[in-house]
Amino acid sequence: MRDPLLLTPGPLTTTLATKMAMLNDWGSWDSSFNALTASVCQRLVDLVDGGEDFVCVPLQGSGTFAVEAAIGTLLPRDGKLLVLANGAYGKRMARLTEVMGRAVSVLDFGETSPVDPVRVATRLAADPQITHVGVIHCETSTGILNPLEAIAEVVALAGRRLIIDAMSALGALPLSAREIAFDAVIASSNKCLEGVPGMGFVLVRQRSLALAQGNAHSLSLDLHDQWRYLQQTGQWRYTPPTHVVAALASALDQYQAEGGRPARFARYSSNCAALIEGLHGLGLRPFLPAAIQAPIIVTVQAPEHANWQFGEFYQRVKAQGVVLYPGKLTELETFRVGCIGAIGKAEIQMAVDAIARALTEMRIRA
Amino acid sequence: MRDPLLLTPGPLTTTLATKMAMLNDWGSWDSSFNALTASVCQRLVDLVDGGEDFVCVPLQGSGTFAVEAAIGTLLPRDGKLLVLANGAYGKRMARLTEVMGRAVSVLDFGETSPVDPVRVATRLAADPQITHVGVIHCETSTGILNPLEAIAEVVALAGRRLIIDAMSALGALPLSAREIAFDAVIASSNKCLEGVPGMGFVLVRQRSLALAQGNAHSLSLDLHDQWRYLQQTGQWRYTPPTHVVAALASALDQYQAEGGRPARFARYSSNCAALIEGLHGLGLRPFLPAAIQAPIIVTVQAPEHANWQFGEFYQRVKAQGVVLYPGKLTELETFRVGCIGAIGKAEIQMAVDAIARALTEMRIRA
Repeated sequence: MRDPLLLTPGPLTTTLATKMAMLNDWGSWDSSFNALTASVCQRLVDLVDGGEDFVCVPLQGSGTFAVEAAIGTLLPRDGKLLVLANGAYGKRMARLTEVMGRAVSVLDFGETSPVDPVRVATRLAADPQITHVGVIHCETSTGILNPLEAIAEVVALAGRRLIIDAMSALGALPLSAREIAFDAVIASSNKCLEGVPGMGFVLVRQRSLALAQGNAHSLSLDLHDQWRYLQQTGQWRYTPPTHVVAALASALDQYQAEGGRPARFARYSSNCAALIEGLHGLGLRPFLPAAIQAPIIVTVQAPEHANWQFGEFYQRVKAQGVVLYPGKLTELETFRVGCIGAIGKAEIQMAVDAIARALTEMRIRA
Repeated sequence: MRDPLLLTPGPLTTTLATKMAMLNDWGSWDSSFNALTASVCQRLVDLVDGGEDFVCVPLQGSGTFAVEAAIGTLLPRDGKLLVLANGAYGKRMARLTEVMGRAVSVLDFGETSPVDPVRVATRLAADPQITHVGVIHCETSTGILNPLEAIAEVVALAGRRLIIDAMSALGALPLSAREIAFDAVIASSNKCLEGVPGMGFVLVRQRSLALAQGNAHSLSLDLHDQWRYLQQTGQWRYTPPTHVVAALASALDQYQAEGGRPARFARYSSNCAALIEGLHGLGLRPFLPAAIQAPIIVTVQAPEHANWQFGEFYQRVKAQGVVLYPGKLTELETFRVGCIGAIGKAEIQMAVDAIARALTEMRIRA
């Protein structure tokens, strides 16, 4: 009857207010919509303390479109990207760079370790061709938190430019241009900002973007062109997802009312702690050690039991109104539970109860 | 107080039912959402009588993203596209092909004439390098209707493949795979189907798509990859705009209930006729002759009067609750009025009345 709770890496459970913001139609050429776009962009720049140095370029499509646009636009045709990978999203960043025909190299940390800044420094010293470094803030495949500050330091010391995919982290985990040197941060509407899916955005150093004309491999994904048009007209270059933008504007209002980033971080941390505690009570263990577990999504080791079968487990939990997410590890049977979205401790308790009941029904647990 | 009427080429005025379909959150990995996607895709294939030969590949982003994806995927790296251009959208198709680094040639018919199939045949005979031909069904810059059937005939006779940008026409103007030979038709959610913006789709000949692996210049815009993933998993490859898809599903329900394409064509035609008649009454003339005027959007010649100023006119009409659209002609002062969206004769009458009052206020009309 009710929508299921979405305990996933997104799309997430959003508030009714966010969804109700989509009950209006906007003219994409009209000044009212231009004002909405400008207000959203300003608030997104403020999220990373971008000040005058950074601009927000919104982009139609999913987060991956925005990652591809950022790299395709900022990386010169003769540049080279080093991707620091410890999961599916790092691999995807490398793959999309390869497809666009640019030089790319991957420094792989496996699936279970955070990026090691010492190894990054060594690689940068050894390969002078590398102009840019790409990293995932929170690798959603497992939930690993990468040490952004230390990484940014070695990249800056080596005189390279940093591009951060902060898709599942921005708005909850700390990330400030005053403390960390980067050229671009990429995220989307439907993660920790709790909007609905349909747009990404890039918070990009204006000086770097201004130099990027003609780099892009794609007209639709040309961030420089998108930015210039927005500057000149106040409008998106091609038809914007107007309702999605309106939902994000409402979600940002609610974000501010909740207390901004610290409050959101606190809520997600409390969700994460309650989830891990509840799972422990069921004999289930999170896959990551606490020190590298971001409060975004928790990878859980599947029970070692002959009756375990993810498909059945998923359906039994869903029948109780909770949608979980499959694991993404290649060598270990896992599932994932998100801590983000318009949910609190009560919803986490619902999820733990649903998991408990499913395991009992499957005779995995007494 | 009320949302203004959007008499534009889109985003359009949609029904409340369509917008209310966005009041649910969907898990993008979940079987319920997969079923929604499959149902939308099947109905879109049926729109062009695609039968077993065609598949629908939905794509995140605006319509232009889908046009770029279709060309980038279907045109081989060593292929060559001939674009039949008579306005901004033809030019954009050529530009995006150029940016992706493929060979492209433009046959330009100016801004005021439909594509002439005889000239197309001559060009195809003269240039054996051309593998594909791209055309805009209804060129929204002016509202010109291009003679698709005759064009498709000369393209097929010359043994080339046709790609149709039917963005602002599909769902209203006739277009059947049984009558016209094409490889792909591209459109989006927010035009004549009256959904909200945020996704495009390509109705593509399966045999051609199957041969297109590895052509794409972009991972995000790789239609072959998107299709294979959808086939294998039932899911979109990257986060789909779930609420936009749900709105389109509802819009398609309403489309069927209204009587499908014939009913929609009849309503838009009646809107268009009422609009032109009303404008005539105010001494305003449509720019195009009736024979090539599609019932989608009408380009109107601005009054030749010293007081005419589009910005002021626009604001005065908007103050009465009606949003119009600027002209896109380079050599003549015009504005545009859309006939599409969830509007009928009453709304057209409102628009004509608002235009009349604005002209009176501006002392252009007594």
